[in-house]
Amino acid sequence: MSRKKKLKKLDLRKFVSKTAKRGSIPGTVEYIGQPRVGDVKIDVLEFDELMWKEYNSIPIAELKDYLNHPGVKWIQVTGVHNPEILSDIGKVLNVISLDLEDIANTTQRPRIEERDDYIFLIFKVLQLDPESREVNIEQISLILGDGFVVSFHETTPKILETLQNRIRAGKGRVRRMKSDYLVFAITDIIIDQYFTLLEDIGETLEDTEEELIVSPGQASQEAIYKLKRRLGYIKKTIWPARDVLNSLHLSDHILLNPGSKIYFRNIYDHTIQIIESLESLRDLTSGMMDLYLSTVSFKMNEIMKVLTIFSTIFIPLTFFAGVYGMNFKNLPELGWYYGYYLFWGVMIVIILVMLAWFRRKKWL
Amino acid sequence: MSRKKKLKKLDLRKFVSKTAKRGSIPGTVEYIGQPRVGDVKIDVLEFDELMWKEYNSIPIAELKDYLNHPGVKWIQVTGVHNPEILSDIGKVLNVISLDLEDIANTTQRPRIEERDDYIFLIFKVLQLDPESREVNIEQISLILGDGFVVSFHETTPKILETLQNRIRAGKGRVRRMKSDYLVFAITDIIIDQYFTLLEDIGETLEDTEEELIVSPGQASQEAIYKLKRRLGYIKKTIWPARDVLNSLHLSDHILLNPGSKIYFRNIYDHTIQIIESLESLRDLTSGMMDLYLSTVSFKMNEIMKVLTIFSTIFIPLTFFAGVYGMNFKNLPELGWYYGYYLFWGVMIVIILVMLAWFRRKKWL
Amino acid sequence: MSRKKKLKKLDLRKFVSKTAKRGSIPGTVEYIGQPRVGDVKIDVLEFDELMWKEYNSIPIAELKDYLNHPGVKWIQVTGVHNPEILSDIGKVLNVISLDLEDIANTTQRPRIEERDDYIFLIFKVLQLDPESREVNIEQISLILGDGFVVSFHETTPKILETLQNRIRAGKGRVRRMKSDYLVFAITDIIIDQYFTLLEDIGETLEDTEEELIVSPGQASQEAIYKLKRRLGYIKKTIWPARDVLNSLHLSDHILLNPGSKIYFRNIYDHTIQIIESLESLRDLTSGMMDLYLSTVSFKMNEIMKVLTIFSTIFIPLTFFAGVYGMNFKNLPELGWYYGYYLFWGVMIVIILVMLAWFRRKKWL
Amino acid sequence: MSRKKKLKKLDLRKFVSKTAKRGSIPGTVEYIGQPRVGDVKIDVLEFDELMWKEYNSIPIAELKDYLNHPGVKWIQVTGVHNPEILSDIGKVLNVISLDLEDIANTTQRPRIEERDDYIFLIFKVLQLDPESREVNIEQISLILGDGFVVSFHETTPKILETLQNRIRAGKGRVRRMKSDYLVFAITDIIIDQYFTLLEDIGETLEDTEEELIVSPGQASQEAIYKLKRRLGYIKKTIWPARDVLNSLHLSDHILLNPGSKIYFRNIYDHTIQIIESLESLRDLTSGMMDLYLSTVSFKMNEIMKVLTIFSTIFIPLTFFAGVYGMNFKNLPELGWYYGYYLFWGVMIVIILVMLAWFRRKKWL
Amino acid sequence: MSRKKKLKKLDLRKFVSKTAKRGSIPGTVEYIGQPRVGDVKIDVLEFDELMWKEYNSIPIAELKDYLNHPGVKWIQVTGVHNPEILSDIGKVLNVISLDLEDIANTTQRPRIEERDDYIFLIFKVLQLDPESREVNIEQISLILGDGFVVSFHETTPKILETLQNRIRAGKGRVRRMKSDYLVFAITDIIIDQYFTLLEDIGETLEDTEEELIVSPGQASQEAIYKLKRRLGYIKKTIWPARDVLNSLHLSDHILLNPGSKIYFRNIYDHTIQIIESLESLRDLTSGMMDLYLSTVSFKMNEIMKVLTIFSTIFIPLTFFAGVYGMNFKNLPELGWYYGYYLFWGVMIVIILVMLAWFRRKKWL
Repeated sequence: MSRKKKLKKLDLRKFVSKTAKRGSIPGTVEYIGQPRVGDVKIDVLEFDELMWKEYNSIPIAELKDYLNHPGVKWIQVTGVHNPEILSDIGKVLNVISLDLEDIANTTQRPRIEERDDYIFLIFKVLQLDPESREVNIEQISLILGDGFVVSFHETTPKILETLQNRIRAGKGRVRRMKSDYLVFAITDIIIDQYFTLLEDIGETLEDTEEELIVSPGQASQEAIYKLKRRLGYIKKTIWPARDVLNSLHLSDHILLNPGSKIYFRNIYDHTIQIIESLESLRDLTSGMMDLYLSTVSFKMNEIMKVLTIFSTIFIPLTFFAGVYGMNFKNLPELGWYYGYYLFWGVMIVIILVMLAWFRRKKWL
Repeated sequence: MSRKKKLKKLDLRKFVSKTAKRGSIPGTVEYIGQPRVGDVKIDVLEFDELMWKEYNSIPIAELKDYLNHPGVKWIQVTGVHNPEILSDIGKVLNVISLDLEDIANTTQRPRIEERDDYIFLIFKVLQLDPESREVNIEQISLILGDGFVVSFHETTPKILETLQNRIRAGKGRVRRMKSDYLVFAITDIIIDQYFTLLEDIGETLEDTEEELIVSPGQASQEAIYKLKRRLGYIKKTIWPARDVLNSLHLSDHILLNPGSKIYFRNIYDHTIQIIESLESLRDLTSGMMDLYLSTVSFKMNEIMKVLTIFSTIFIPLTFFAGVYGMNFKNLPELGWYYGYYLFWGVMIVIILVMLAWFRRKKWL
Repeated sequence: MSRKKKLKKLDLRKFVSKTAKRGSIPGTVEYIGQPRVGDVKIDVLEFDELMWKEYNSIPIAELKDYLNHPGVKWIQVTGVHNPEILSDIGKVLNVISLDLEDIANTTQRPRIEERDDYIFLIFKVLQLDPESREVNIEQISLILGDGFVVSFHETTPKILETLQNRIRAGKGRVRRMKSDYLVFAITDIIIDQYFTLLEDIGETLEDTEEELIVSPGQASQEAIYKLKRRLGYIKKTIWPARDVLNSLHLSDHILLNPGSKIYFRNIYDHTIQIIESLESLRDLTSGMMDLYLSTVSFKMNEIMKVLTIFSTIFIPLTFFAGVYGMNFKNLPELGWYYGYYLFWGVMIVIILVMLAWFRRKKWL
Repeated sequence: MSRKKKLKKLDLRKFVSKTAKRGSIPGTVEYIGQPRVGDVKIDVLEFDELMWKEYNSIPIAELKDYLNHPGVKWIQVTGVHNPEILSDIGKVLNVISLDLEDIANTTQRPRIEERDDYIFLIFKVLQLDPESREVNIEQISLILGDGFVVSFHETTPKILETLQNRIRAGKGRVRRMKSDYLVFAITDIIIDQYFTLLEDIGETLEDTEEELIVSPGQASQEAIYKLKRRLGYIKKTIWPARDVLNSLHLSDHILLNPGSKIYFRNIYDHTIQIIESLESLRDLTSGMMDLYLSTVSFKMNEIMKVLTIFSTIFIPLTFFAGVYGMNFKNLPELGWYYGYYLFWGVMIVIILVMLAWFRRKKWL
Repeated sequence: MSRKKKLKKLDLRKFVSKTAKRGSIPGTVEYIGQPRVGDVKIDVLEFDELMWKEYNSIPIAELKDYLNHPGVKWIQVTGVHNPEILSDIGKVLNVISLDLEDIANTTQRPRIEERDDYIFLIFKVLQLDPESREVNIEQISLILGDGFVVSFHETTPKILETLQNRIRAGKGRVRRMKSDYLVFAITDIIIDQYFTLLEDIGETLEDTEEELIVSPGQASQEAIYKLKRRLGYIKKTIWPARDVLNSLHLSDHILLNPGSKIYFRNIYDHTIQIIESLESLRDLTSGMMDLYLSTVSFKMNEIMKVLTIFSTIFIPLTFFAGVYGMNFKNLPELGWYYGYYLFWGVMIVIILVMLAWFRRKKWL
């Protein structure tokens, strides 16, 4: 029972995607994901080089007004479990129904859709829960429109807050740039998380390796298995993200300034780096599994050698002791005066011969 | 014997295709599949935005008349084991002989053929039998013509009934759209089944993983093997389906409205998602197999350690007990007053030395 | 010795190709293959939609005359071990020397060469010997000329006889079509053989799987190995055949009617299906090997558990029995009136404690 | 504990890349790498066919003046841990901020960026520490400008000193050529290091193989694992280097003379050779791992045979000795005059039968 | 020690390439290879359709004169360890310095360089030493100029002598053709060697397989490992050779007659065949390794069964014999008149029960 706790169960959402609830009808917006309650919250962060303003929990009806404000508008929609609200937002922003369906389905893979008047992006945020040491997956959908960016998320990931603080503080280039740079900034902070995750995995790997050498046990093999599993779903998340970023830096959609391409190219390079690190780590875990297996085999040999040496030495001796413990009336050796000493002499000779033989076999 | 039942035998049809019966002649329509009896049934479901009508078990001779009706006609042919009827239908619909052969051969792989006046599609429906927990494979052939869709199937899969009910109820977009959207709707519901299947496999995998950790036995390894096998033939079915959908969304056949491409593109994305989930699950099963093997190896070591510790401690002791059980006339220790206590003392020292040695070897 | 018979030796011809005899000179026609004697036989089968005629064992000198006959001429050359005859035939048909070399070398891989006035094809016929259950490989070279097809083979494979009978009986399309359709018909019957072979392998696989579960032994592992080997050389034969058929259906050589392309496309699809079935079967055999290995490991654990349980219970008991078999003068327990019963009591307690411990360890 | 020392821990920098410090802002130059102190040193080596001059530790303010000197200027910047100095150098040389960020991040992968007025290159120097036998990774960033080359490195790698000495001595073509040839010379000496490394690995492999055959132990398996790990990160370094060199020899940037392409092509060929050698060595290590595992399995069999032969012979004998050691009042054999000799006779017969049986089983 | 001899050490030259001696300067011709002494010998073989002439050991100074002779000139340079002579030859033939470096470096991979007035080719000759059964690798560099071919080799490989004899005897097409056909003839004879080698490996494989089945031992596993290693470096040699021949048959360099393409195409096909045979053989060796491992595992099970059956039967019996060998004063069974016979009866019952149990477990 307690063993079970050690190895947390598969979180299926990380491995298997869904298109829709069973029996659902294509063309309707439906929430697919972990059950959630609570209101959907819409916040707007408006900024340009000189100022920033914040409007919290605004009603959908007013959303349209904000779009006409000058500066870059970052509209954050927290909660995608309410299909009606999504549909309303979709109407305000002219988002087509297929994309709204994908926003509501939190098991989507990273993707990009270039529509006539907006670019639709899906990314996955991977965050390591500092307590449970589990990786949480959250989906972020982005809509890059003319002068605004809408981000849809189930909760507010911490990394987005970091970015907001940075905007408020006016650090970095983001205040000086257009809405496409905001998309870059969000994407960059998402991808950066993967590096953090890989580093964490790398460190666990280091510990596991050490443990593997010093005292290989079942714990180390489960640790390797768990790492493999984690690398597996990170791979599943990062590979399509690479394609998205490749499309982005090669795209010539009107909403992307030619000067921004160099930035998207840069994140694209980062995803390549992540993929290479990932492959290196996968190779390492495979190598470790081999090392574990061969170590276990080798230890088995050691154990068997000990057993065999002891058994093969003492089993014949015990037989001889048994022989002279027999109660035959006529057993001449028993009467010899030095019989007992002779017995020990023979036994010692046998032991020495055996030891010499084991030494020649290199078992000792 | 009872073990045999646990692991159901390979259903060869899932792995090996056939072109024709041995010695058959190319160019003749021949049924290849599980033996079936009973009539071939032709039903027509006619609909447009405003109405729907149903005609059951119509004779082939009248089939031509229905084609001239207005609205979208969905002609369902249940049963492909009667070559003559297939040939007759072929004549009415102008389907070439090669395609009729493929309809009658239920071991075909998913494919698409664009003919001058129709598009011919083959898909596989994978359905999990809720009782036997086995996956049933059924072939659906579709012919998309001008204003009509013909679907050929051995039985009527449940998912098609679902779709028919939806049409009758007027849910979703299908009633408002043309015959190419009906093909989309059928394809979509087929592909959606694969997600259901993967989810089911995912859940079995979760159970197996738990079992593997808590008490790995031969059952878990057979479960893994069975999952691998199942993933194997799903892969065999879904890979060509991806190619079919890729061709469909890139095709500019006159029967496909440009506006429908976005829908086929959407299912194409779903197949990609399925393939990625499939690969993830395959990786997981491989990882589990490794985990199983290393767990078994590790347990072996544990067992051997127990055996070795017991044997190496008691075998020498037994020898000494044997020595003092010998009947030599002249065996001085036997006469010592504290001989017996000395014997126990020496034995305990031996035991303690051995235990210390095992502790240093980290076996205890 | 008898074990050896079970696993037939590699037939090297199936794995390693040869270009020529060692030290031979490029540009000379030389027979490479199993030693053969006997005459080379040339038969002609002439047919059109209305009639068919047969001429057996015609002399080479007359061969040219037959070419001028109307209708499709199928010239069958049985035996390729006589270089001079091949050269003579080559002169009559204008076949270049490089192609004649390839006809005489029966270790060639499937290939296609489009020459100015003929198409040269090499295929492999794989036939299962019904008695020895071994796969025989035979090479068929085809020359498609204007109005005639020449087939070269070492013996007359049974499948060609089937095709000849079909022509004589006027079944199928072949009598109505041109010489390129005859090439299609020959190719089709060769590729169909592969399906038969795969089905046979599939059935053996099913048997092996059952055996593996019910009573895994060395026989099952050798069966798997043999299946792998067989799948290996089928793969080696079918992969290049796919390329040949791909070239054929895309070719626009003047000897191929545009209307025939659909047929070659059809066989091409069949080879794809065969390759997919082959890969599925290969995956299955790998899965079975894993299953076998893990079953063996698991059984080992079971065996070791039995040994360990028995040993660890009885070895201490035996020691205690030995102790009270010692002949120390002063061994107080021996004189106790209930000593013997106490001994049994202690022994039973030890046994029960051990059994409880094994149960807690889940060994029982 | 001491075992731990044998297998040095993973140096994570070799496997996982970083983009930036956690929470850092894109667009700022930040040092990422091993902690370093000390000044950043700028040296200039100026040369043409006739002369060479050296200026050590020049201040940044004067750097601009040197650029106007005639001849080729090799500006060496030792130390990249001071962001301000890097920014100042960037301003003097017109290097864009993104590239400066990459220079400061020592976990970058090899890459090439062709900017308008310079080419930016990153390579990794792999050097084998002769004492610790560990591979040190150092990053070298190169900027090829008009008439000058700037190299950035954390320390001064020995191989660059070798190149400087060669320039001072006027050996080779480098003095006669332009700045692009200097880039070639630096790249060439970096790539050459990889050959040296591979040779060293090859030699270790040879030793390991020998050890594996003569006396396989845990040390050999760890050696194999370590080699695999090393080959892993060399691969991670060399694969992108190949792409860089491919881009270089195909580039038609104005700073690359057409006549230099043949040289870059040459290094490109070398990287291909390195990759092939790498793959060969990886194959070899895998083969060795298999050999190790099967050797261990085989030795296990040998050990078990010894144990089994001894046990199965002596365990029955001991039982018989035990039988005649029993104290039954009525145990007739004990009274037989030749009972003891008969006992030995039977025992010897049992031994001989067992030995014959083992011989038939080929265990002896 | 003697074991060591069985498995010859890696010949590192076969796996790792070198660019140059450590610290050497690019742009200088340097010999890299096994140490050699002795003179470099230049021989010329001149021939056309009607005649052939031979000039042995000609001085370099006269070499230029021979180039003006009519007919095809085959200049054989035996020995590449003298850089000056290579440089001199280079000057006479207008060979660029980079190519001369490659001729002197005998660890090059097969390659092709098309220069303005010559084609430069490197191939590897693999020859099986008939005595040591080792494969010797020798590098042959070819320069195809206008009317002449220069071949550079360390020694004179036997296969070149075969070709010379063929030219002298006027066999085959070579005397009738131009210098490009001579290059074809040399390449053809080199590639043919690979077939011979593969056949030899195939035969060894057959022997190993037989041994593996009849009596698997450590020798067979080492044989498999050695075969894998050999296949590894043949692969390393043949893959780039394929690219060279692909370039050759697609090239339209002025020195290659269009009519020769068909011949180079032919050798290209041969290399494809070799690669396929190689892959088949690699698959076979992997399959054998698996077979070996599972056979060893299976035999282990057999051994363990024997041990377990003997131990579990006799260990309890021995305990009972021990019990009745105890010296308790009050041990009632000892006094029973039929006690001893009862003892045997119980023992036999225990044995029979155990045997029945083992039979039910299918261990017997």
